[in-house]
Amino acid sequence: MQIFFSPTSPYVRKCLVTAYELGLIDLIEFLPANAHPVNRDAHIIASNPLGKVPTFVTDDGAALYDSRVICEYLNALGHGSLLAAEGAARWEALTLQSLGDGILDAALLARYENHVRPEALRWPEWVNGKLDAIRTSLHYLDQHPEVFEAEFHLGLLTIGCALWYLDLRYPELAWREAYPRLAKAAEPVLQRDSMKQSWSMPG
Amino acid sequence: MQIFFSPTSPYVRKCLVTAYELGLIDLIEFLPANAHPVNRDAHIIASNPLGKVPTFVTDDGAALYDSRVICEYLNALGHGSLLAAEGAARWEALTLQSLGDGILDAALLARYENHVRPEALRWPEWVNGKLDAIRTSLHYLDQHPEVFEAEFHLGLLTIGCALWYLDLRYPELAWREAYPRLAKAAEPVLQRDSMKQSWSMPG
Repeated sequence: MQIFFSPTSPYVRKCLVTAYELGLIDLIEFLPANAHPVNRDAHIIASNPLGKVPTFVTDDGAALYDSRVICEYLNALGHGSLLAAEGAARWEALTLQSLGDGILDAALLARYENHVRPEALRWPEWVNGKLDAIRTSLHYLDQHPEVFEAEFHLGLLTIGCALWYLDLRYPELAWREAYPRLAKAAEPVLQRDSMKQSWSMPG
Repeated sequence: MQIFFSPTSPYVRKCLVTAYELGLIDLIEFLPANAHPVNRDAHIIASNPLGKVPTFVTDDGAALYDSRVICEYLNALGHGSLLAAEGAARWEALTLQSLGDGILDAALLARYENHVRPEALRWPEWVNGKLDAIRTSLHYLDQHPEVFEAEFHLGLLTIGCALWYLDLRYPELAWREAYPRLAKAAEPVLQRDSMKQSWSMPG
């Protein structure tokens, strides 16, 4: 199995944490990649026409993407318990995954605006809209710390990766101070071996 | 069941087509919404802190998002066959859904750039990157018309909604002329009753 890899992509990180949780990490080969929203990587495009990471190649040669598909595939391959097969627990986990991915989408778009786009073409209201989406999402989690009481699943894994990315790229948000109930409830997720070990990955 | 609704959102449309396919459309109440990337809709945020459409509310009062979660939920609720329960067919359908969603993400971002952002702050290279992602994706489908031979599934449904959206917002792309094998292979998807009837929806 192979994965097109970037060490700071939070979506790649979702896949790595999942692979660690399932004991599959040593079976995956890391392929270097230079995904970029403007200067697109032809090497990735050959496997995924969207040119994004993560892109995963199974032992049968099938290309899988995006992170949601890869994580669910790995969970099935490893006979994991990261996603309930049916019922309310499944929809809750998947919706929390959407929330985490939505925080990440907003964080990435704000970062492209502030670090990739030429300075003269930046639009503060766009960044404000993205940061506001991050804040209303963190506020929701701060109001609902009980979601962290569930058995660890792909939704909590994704929220963990989103919080890790905010620490990495948006330390000025100081989310732990602003959302102390979330900080306390999420700490066991952030302290999982899978989260800590996957942050010293190859690359 | 309720859905926060926008008539031209391609992600909402995925849910409507799915509901039509499963005979569930008449059970869904449409809630007006004004999702916007900068001026965020507090009414949606009360159910989905990301403030996006589609947001779905089940009869039990649970909020589900985004479109992938809603479509899979509807398929399970309606005992549908739009997504294989396991195996290669499942990963193929889900990866095609990712491809369709990726085309739509690129199309939406290019549209925000050209129609929402102040004109003086637009960055042509950003739009070019998005349009190039659309083109490499359509080229892939043009090279692999056999994917349309599968029994109809959520991946093909999503590709259909992506092509519909390109017709609606990017007629100048003239994708049928540029990708004639894709045009021929996709036509049965675009002609499905569920695709046609859901485009004269309330609102």
